[in-house]
Amino acid sequence: MKRVCTRQFRNLTRLRSFGEVREKISRSINHVCLSRRSFHGSACRLGELELTSVRYPHVQRGKYATLTEKDVDFFQKLLPQRVLQDPSELDGYNIDWMRTVRGNSQMVLRPKTTSEVAEILKYCNERHLAVVPQGGNTGLVGGSVPVFDEIVISTQLMNQIISLDEVSGIIVCQSGCVLETLDNYLAERELMMPLDLGAKGSCHIGGNVSTNAGGLRLLRYGSLHGSVLGVEAVLASGEIVDCLSSLRKDNTGYDLKQLFIGSEGTLGMVTSVSILCPRRPKAVNVAFLGVENFEAALQTFQLCKGMLAEILSACEFMDQESMQCIQENLKLTNPIKSYPLYILIETSGSHGSHDEEKLNVFLEAAMGKGIVQDGTIAMDVTQRQNIWGLRERIAEGLLHDGYNYKYDISLPLPKLYEIVEDMRQRLGSKVTRVVSYGHLGDGNLHFNVTTPEYDKEVLGLIEPYIYEWTSQVRGSVSAEHGLGFKKRDCIRYSKEPNAVKMMVKMKKLFDPNGILNPYKTIPL
Amino acid sequence: MKRVCTRQFRNLTRLRSFGEVREKISRSINHVCLSRRSFHGSACRLGELELTSVRYPHVQRGKYATLTEKDVDFFQKLLPQRVLQDPSELDGYNIDWMRTVRGNSQMVLRPKTTSEVAEILKYCNERHLAVVPQGGNTGLVGGSVPVFDEIVISTQLMNQIISLDEVSGIIVCQSGCVLETLDNYLAERELMMPLDLGAKGSCHIGGNVSTNAGGLRLLRYGSLHGSVLGVEAVLASGEIVDCLSSLRKDNTGYDLKQLFIGSEGTLGMVTSVSILCPRRPKAVNVAFLGVENFEAALQTFQLCKGMLAEILSACEFMDQESMQCIQENLKLTNPIKSYPLYILIETSGSHGSHDEEKLNVFLEAAMGKGIVQDGTIAMDVTQRQNIWGLRERIAEGLLHDGYNYKYDISLPLPKLYEIVEDMRQRLGSKVTRVVSYGHLGDGNLHFNVTTPEYDKEVLGLIEPYIYEWTSQVRGSVSAEHGLGFKKRDCIRYSKEPNAVKMMVKMKKLFDPNGILNPYKTIPL
Repeated sequence: MKRVCTRQFRNLTRLRSFGEVREKISRSINHVCLSRRSFHGSACRLGELELTSVRYPHVQRGKYATLTEKDVDFFQKLLPQRVLQDPSELDGYNIDWMRTVRGNSQMVLRPKTTSEVAEILKYCNERHLAVVPQGGNTGLVGGSVPVFDEIVISTQLMNQIISLDEVSGIIVCQSGCVLETLDNYLAERELMMPLDLGAKGSCHIGGNVSTNAGGLRLLRYGSLHGSVLGVEAVLASGEIVDCLSSLRKDNTGYDLKQLFIGSEGTLGMVTSVSILCPRRPKAVNVAFLGVENFEAALQTFQLCKGMLAEILSACEFMDQESMQCIQENLKLTNPIKSYPLYILIETSGSHGSHDEEKLNVFLEAAMGKGIVQDGTIAMDVTQRQNIWGLRERIAEGLLHDGYNYKYDISLPLPKLYEIVEDMRQRLGSKVTRVVSYGHLGDGNLHFNVTTPEYDKEVLGLIEPYIYEWTSQVRGSVSAEHGLGFKKRDCIRYSKEPNAVKMMVKMKKLFDPNGILNPYKTIPL
Repeated sequence: MKRVCTRQFRNLTRLRSFGEVREKISRSINHVCLSRRSFHGSACRLGELELTSVRYPHVQRGKYATLTEKDVDFFQKLLPQRVLQDPSELDGYNIDWMRTVRGNSQMVLRPKTTSEVAEILKYCNERHLAVVPQGGNTGLVGGSVPVFDEIVISTQLMNQIISLDEVSGIIVCQSGCVLETLDNYLAERELMMPLDLGAKGSCHIGGNVSTNAGGLRLLRYGSLHGSVLGVEAVLASGEIVDCLSSLRKDNTGYDLKQLFIGSEGTLGMVTSVSILCPRRPKAVNVAFLGVENFEAALQTFQLCKGMLAEILSACEFMDQESMQCIQENLKLTNPIKSYPLYILIETSGSHGSHDEEKLNVFLEAAMGKGIVQDGTIAMDVTQRQNIWGLRERIAEGLLHDGYNYKYDISLPLPKLYEIVEDMRQRLGSKVTRVVSYGHLGDGNLHFNVTTPEYDKEVLGLIEPYIYEWTSQVRGSVSAEHGLGFKKRDCIRYSKEPNAVKMMVKMKKLFDPNGILNPYKTIPL
């Protein structure tokens, strides 16, 4: 039993009667969608989604070759039984899991080795055949599906763990390893992956690295630019760039692996990675707090950064409208009273009672200063999952409203909620809800608007206004989702012309024929 | 008073009579050398050091223009009173602080702003005048001094702190800020820089970023690839690439800033940086332990990683020969009995008594299991500095032997000491000492051999043997020092030909005329 830190902290035990959300909640709705067993909130079934080439008529197919029988013969010899061409099998590779884009690829290749990937790319480069590398196909910006008839190179069969040094915590594996599989493998050895995502049951580590995935552990363990120690990638030419170092320090020349982190498969296809894995925490605590305004939320974050310091592992927030959404649409129960904003704080450490003491002292201070008004602490794993469920099921709740306009932006912390209030005023009664939540500790806002159905006028009120707003305060129009196909033309809101010019030059240097994941990342 | 965790841990209080090293020790001998007030172990005075062009006759001057009066006029107009040409003033910019290389630059430019740097580079690029960017000139591989007559662009006057967001801990500053100045500024705000180096009193943050400096906090806070959030750099063409984001998350296009981290000023000159700074720890503990062999050292590291977990901030090691060196040459006292290997463990946390308890429990376990034989814990700041002094003054101690062959390599942890034993056998009685120490937690070995004077035969026994050995186990021939001028031709021991080829292409893309820090990083 956890002790109550102050009398004010009166809702501590309410969570026990938290029946509505007691069912096992996967860390996010993503899990459900990703399995493709079902899809919530969409009337659209497989086969009915219009082709990307139809929906986005301004995007023209590049001057690439078209697949011939000779090509198919080549690939079938190279990858016996590992070339998919049956249209019924191709849908899952042509359509993104959000069901917003649909390519028209006629062939999926499933290599098992780096040298097979090298053979494929060498051939495609010589033949001017465009390709799209694909991992778990869990991206949110249409980056991992074909736009036209690009050949899909899937990493599904590249799923071998190559090595683990348990002393240093460095794992080396192929790019097709599923994140959760790796995390489970590490859990048996008291280690864990430095990143965690809702899509972890499906996403591939190669895709995580290629999109510089952020997620729930970034506040504590930093970005993949720091924790990825090595990358092996195949260039468009078929040349293998082996920077698969498993060293913490290596200052010999340019750090080429960084180029493949976050470039969405447009500079090379990641085939193996080496990652530094932290120790798995022995104790995890979760608190859910109510505050009166965003200023108090920031004060809470600052206070917990100082007082929880090395054990702070997440600082998430959600607003009243987020809570209303999950209450109304998912019938979840708010474990505390209604407040304008809620904060979820997680600690992860090596010593349970030390961590509890720190958390209690922090909560006493936060409530004593009048920053935090109310709160509850999870008592066990189920309660932890339930509190996390409140934060993570908002995305699911939103789908029930009808149409959902989704944005994933980074802003300087003092500006993080100003945009929400501004937008709420701007949209007024034209919309069902303006809902925001996100990673407070990372300055990452998930901003959402819902309407009963798609409304062009509402879209016109949101865009480009939200991008211009973000740009003016030097925010990022894509905090963690990347640009992919759908956002590549928004790059100018977050990057200067000289930077974009350098990117274009680098793309040309690495992939002169432009065969690698065309129509993605780099703007038209 | 700190309690003794076991009876075995009997040397706890010995440190109090630790008179020999009680004088205030700067974190490293580097401090002394860097100030250029004195230089230990070298008979060579300023003016006597031979020119790099003489010492390395195989390196030919590139086909660059030579400085004319018209050029000088241009720079004097652009930077009034900030162009140095007096030969007596130029020595400090032409010679590295180790006094191993000496350029022959005729001019030092001291811009204050990014746009001045842009003007300089635009002009130099058009005129084909080669330049070398220089920060605190504290590098160890001759990367920041001219090789021939390159114009020095010093960041000495680019020392403004631009902003600090105390909530997120993100500082933005010009590249010429001295690391220690930044750390002191942050200390007043309960924050700290994520890196710490012996040279912190002199080195510039722009140089740290350009060389991807490692240092003493890397084990805990990771590399600069993770903690640098933004970079503003000027390309050879004079174009400013503004990627000075102060966001934790930004996935809009390629992460160009990574290219400037560790590329030693050969792709662009860093003018400003944005860095994520951790909270300053409230409690710091240091323990000094003796173990019987390297296997026990690894077990100690593994145990403390697990038990100290989030509070572990350093795990350094030094061998018996290191201890003998500082005992004999610096008259320092070993606070415990003599052991084959010693380990220094530092914890940093937010709660003193929690940290002490964790440390004591760890020490009890380590001694109970028979892994650690003996040890002592620092009782106060002075004792902490004294223990750190044992580890950090080895470099100074070595200089007293005469000639010092120095290597800075990364190896897979299980191999880290094997190379030392192998080399000790190989060199036998031909040398004074074979000494090794380093960052155990990072797999980074500082390997040293001494002889009374420079001995070509000994050098031939060490090189290329040590590089080949390192290469065979996929180690790095430069863990944290970079390649610069002196090690650029060693790159092939740690990087594959395809990777080097890509680097050469990138250099050509970013700097087609090759004016930026020529003769560095990229091999001949």
